[in-house]
Amino acid sequence: MRILGIDPGLQRTGYGLVDVTGRGLKLVEAGVIRADAKAPLEQRVREIHDGIAEVFREFKPDVAVVEQLFSTYSHPKTAILMGHARGVIFLAAAEAEVPVEGYAPNRIKQAVTNSGHAGKQQVQRAVQAAFGLAQPPEPPDVADALAIALCHAQSLSSRRLRA
Amino acid sequence: MRILGIDPGLQRTGYGLVDVTGRGLKLVEAGVIRADAKAPLEQRVREIHDGIAEVFREFKPDVAVVEQLFSTYSHPKTAILMGHARGVIFLAAAEAEVPVEGYAPNRIKQAVTNSGHAGKQQVQRAVQAAFGLAQPPEPPDVADALAIALCHAQSLSSRRLRA
Repeated sequence: MRILGIDPGLQRTGYGLVDVTGRGLKLVEAGVIRADAKAPLEQRVREIHDGIAEVFREFKPDVAVVEQLFSTYSHPKTAILMGHARGVIFLAAAEAEVPVEGYAPNRIKQAVTNSGHAGKQQVQRAVQAAFGLAQPPEPPDVADALAIALCHAQSLSSRRLRA
Repeated sequence: MRILGIDPGLQRTGYGLVDVTGRGLKLVEAGVIRADAKAPLEQRVREIHDGIAEVFREFKPDVAVVEQLFSTYSHPKTAILMGHARGVIFLAAAEAEVPVEGYAPNRIKQAVTNSGHAGKQQVQRAVQAAFGLAQPPEPPDVADALAIALCHAQSLSSRRLRA
């Protein structure tokens, strides 16, 4: 089972691929797709779309996982622009015929740090520890994408234990 | 000059194609792209993307025009979902190599009704009058898309007069 965690953003979209094997979790690849902030919006969404489509093609994940939407945002316009990135990412998943799952932000933080209110740095350190990395993943978008993948891996293993 | 006005929405995306000729404006085609509200989000954005991509392919507009984003929204979550539709529409424009222009909502209403605060029905009636239609365009998303195209046509002709 290969999980692709994605943290959608119009400037930077973080992604992380995690394999769930009989011996535990393995980090396959992680990175960030950047769109030129000065380019017109139509070019920026295209860079995000084509970048993540390439990740789907190259790494063939079984499932993509993203953070669910909240009901309130302190910066609605920024959130709507994030929605543009999220839209083209969901499109890329549909084109690759990969299902998308979502978790609430506090559920993801809870899964990786044991606190639903953890800060960015706590998430980065928890992800570093989970994969035995020498450094915390940078930028934070990569750590967030890996945290989302970890949350789904945990959810899968607890489903298996309950079965 | 062929203008494609688009009113992005995740449930319904309205579109309207208008030709600007030496003898005035001509409505070429207008309609609505519907996405199955019960389908997963990744399928819905795909239906919107593929539907509008088909419009770009078939009618070869010179420019696409959409409403600009506001800074505040009364329903942020709905606005973010609209952002998903808007994202895949901008992507389709980039893929078709068609530039995108935007106008503020009150500028569009002002252009077609002479009031920046016109309601949906006023916009529908103004669009009906502008194209000499027997009925107001339905659903309102189609009228809104045609209003956006009209606004751009007016802006072009005033640029020409000033030149």
